[in-house]
Amino acid sequence: MTLIDGKAIAQEVRHEIRAEVAEWVAAGHEAPGLATVLVGDDPASAVYVGGKQKACAEVGMRGFDHRLAADTSEDEVKRLLHQLNEDPAVSGILLQLPPPPHIDGPKLTEEIAPGKDVDGLTPISTGLLHKNLPGLRPCTPLGCMELLKRHDVDLQGAEAVVVGRSDLVGKPISALLLQANATVTTAHSRTKDLAEVCRRADVLVAAVGVTHLIKGDWVKEGAVVIDVGMNRLDGKLTGDVEFEAASERARLITPVPGGVGPMTIAMLLRNTLQAAKAAAAA
Amino acid sequence: MTLIDGKAIAQEVRHEIRAEVAEWVAAGHEAPGLATVLVGDDPASAVYVGGKQKACAEVGMRGFDHRLAADTSEDEVKRLLHQLNEDPAVSGILLQLPPPPHIDGPKLTEEIAPGKDVDGLTPISTGLLHKNLPGLRPCTPLGCMELLKRHDVDLQGAEAVVVGRSDLVGKPISALLLQANATVTTAHSRTKDLAEVCRRADVLVAAVGVTHLIKGDWVKEGAVVIDVGMNRLDGKLTGDVEFEAASERARLITPVPGGVGPMTIAMLLRNTLQAAKAAAAA
Ligand SMILES: NC(=O)c1ccc[n+]([C@@H]2O[C@H](COP(=O)([O-])OP(=O)(O)OC[C@H]3O[C@@H](n4cnc5c(N)ncnc54)[C@H](O)[C@@H]3O)[C@@H](O)[C@H]2O)c1
Ligand SMILES: NC(=O)c1ccc[n+]([C@@H]2O[C@H](COP(=O)([O-])OP(=O)(O)OC[C@H]3O[C@@H](n4cnc5c(N)ncnc54)[C@H](O)[C@@H]3O)[C@@H](O)[C@H]2O)c1
Repeated sequence: MTLIDGKAIAQEVRHEIRAEVAEWVAAGHEAPGLATVLVGDDPASAVYVGGKQKACAEVGMRGFDHRLAADTSEDEVKRLLHQLNEDPAVSGILLQLPPPPHIDGPKLTEEIAPGKDVDGLTPISTGLLHKNLPGLRPCTPLGCMELLKRHDVDLQGAEAVVVGRSDLVGKPISALLLQANATVTTAHSRTKDLAEVCRRADVLVAAVGVTHLIKGDWVKEGAVVIDVGMNRLDGKLTGDVEFEAASERARLITPVPGGVGPMTIAMLLRNTLQAAKAAAAA
Repeated sequence: MTLIDGKAIAQEVRHEIRAEVAEWVAAGHEAPGLATVLVGDDPASAVYVGGKQKACAEVGMRGFDHRLAADTSEDEVKRLLHQLNEDPAVSGILLQLPPPPHIDGPKLTEEIAPGKDVDGLTPISTGLLHKNLPGLRPCTPLGCMELLKRHDVDLQGAEAVVVGRSDLVGKPISALLLQANATVTTAHSRTKDLAEVCRRADVLVAAVGVTHLIKGDWVKEGAVVIDVGMNRLDGKLTGDVEFEAASERARLITPVPGGVGPMTIAMLLRNTLQAAKAAAAA
């Protein structure tokens, strides 16, 4: 069994992006810019936003760190988003979710211009993904695909099983695997014999949010296992897969932490760079 | 084995829509209106458009039958579409594909306002479908779902296999089956052991376009088989499934012709009515 070292791969990707940004700037372009919008003072959200801004700075991108009071009205946030849509210095916009309860986060996200939707979660971006048209894809699913790519996993005709069907993770991963020519099964909470379904997977992706739901003996001998789960168990971070037991059967497997987790920000940076380049070409 | 009589079910649906339109009009609303746009004089396209307009009239809807010369410019078509977007008498707009080669049909389709996209094929409609948000869904996939519904097929936890992954049929059917809580596998031209994949299907949907690709013994005993294929063989219309052999194993099966085919126009009418009601509520 080989461990998929997401931490190392994410570092690699970030180094590459840094070099690409430097090249882009050397060619006379403005550095790409990421605007983050945080409403309220949820401590976890503040940490996430801080991490994204720090990552931006490290690769030579500009950061626009907008923090709004918890009682900011929906209209005010909307106005800010429109202003950022118009601002040529802003390549990508990210509205940190969840906002305070008086604000409809997913609805507001739809105000972000498709070309700046670096989270890739608006209906238009979703449509472009499923129609295989150019656009920005969701970051965590992209991160999973990048891990598979860096390990040269052959997806053509592979049996892929994705457990989970959220808009954020499960469904977009299924779509990306399908585009990579895997035969894709999407399983979920209503799936009848989940063990049997998982056992047919050459590539098994778990995106559920239930500690150790996927048992070691559900993993086919020689399979590749991507564990997106990030669950708390006795104060420790755990995945959706019984890691020890699964490791004995898998050919490649992501640990939690240090697997998919670090890839999300790396892909956010890549999306921001992609958005900047697309804007310059438009 | 029971035959799924799409012709009869489509008639039933059309009667229901007719009654619903009459009720809507009796309540003081304008009759829903469907605008079709045909560029050029492709005879098959003219027949399709004629059929849609006739169906509209039969259920008491208004039809706006726009026929443009083959040398109409893309800009002129765009202008017409924008005008129809603005016209409150028009509930739904359908640009008949394919247009003459100098016109980018799919691109032009994106000019149709999401609320009037009764074909359900624009990126926004696709995104709304995959995010399970309110919107208009593609007609042929809706037709397949309606056949399953009228036969009380229990999709909760059922193993569904969709062969084909086009934007028009395969992918949207997979999405609708997933929303109905089936465990969904999408197979396609790169699938390795298609026979084996089909054999696990409680519900098997073929949307390929290859005569008799799906062999009778690929059908699980007691499965429900939906054959979307419409292929010409020796001047006769045939499906993607070996009908005779499959019938011996299937519990329910659609014939070709007379299965899925007649449902598409029925669902177009339903979408037009839905669009009219949504516009009135907005
Ligand atoms: N960067 C990252 O690594 C990252 C990003 C996003 C989410 N996550 C993690 O991924 C996991 C999933 O996140 P999400 O946002 O998709 O969650 P979600 O709750 O939106 O979706 C969970 C999905 O799992 C399915 N499910 C629930 N219970 C199940 C069961 N018993 N059997 C089979 N399927 C079941 C549900 O049908 C649902 O589709 C969470 O642990 C989350 O923390 C990690
Ligand atoms: N109203 C209706 O009944 C209706 C509407 C639309 C399409 N159709 C019919 O449905 C069929 C499919 O239409 P479409 O527009 O999706 O076609 P398409 O050509 O766009 O897509 C065909 C799909 O089949 C897959 N495929 C091709 N060869 C295969 C093989 N050997 N094994 C497995 N998969 C294979 C491809 O991967 C592709 O995704 C056609 O026969 C079409 O005429 C019927």
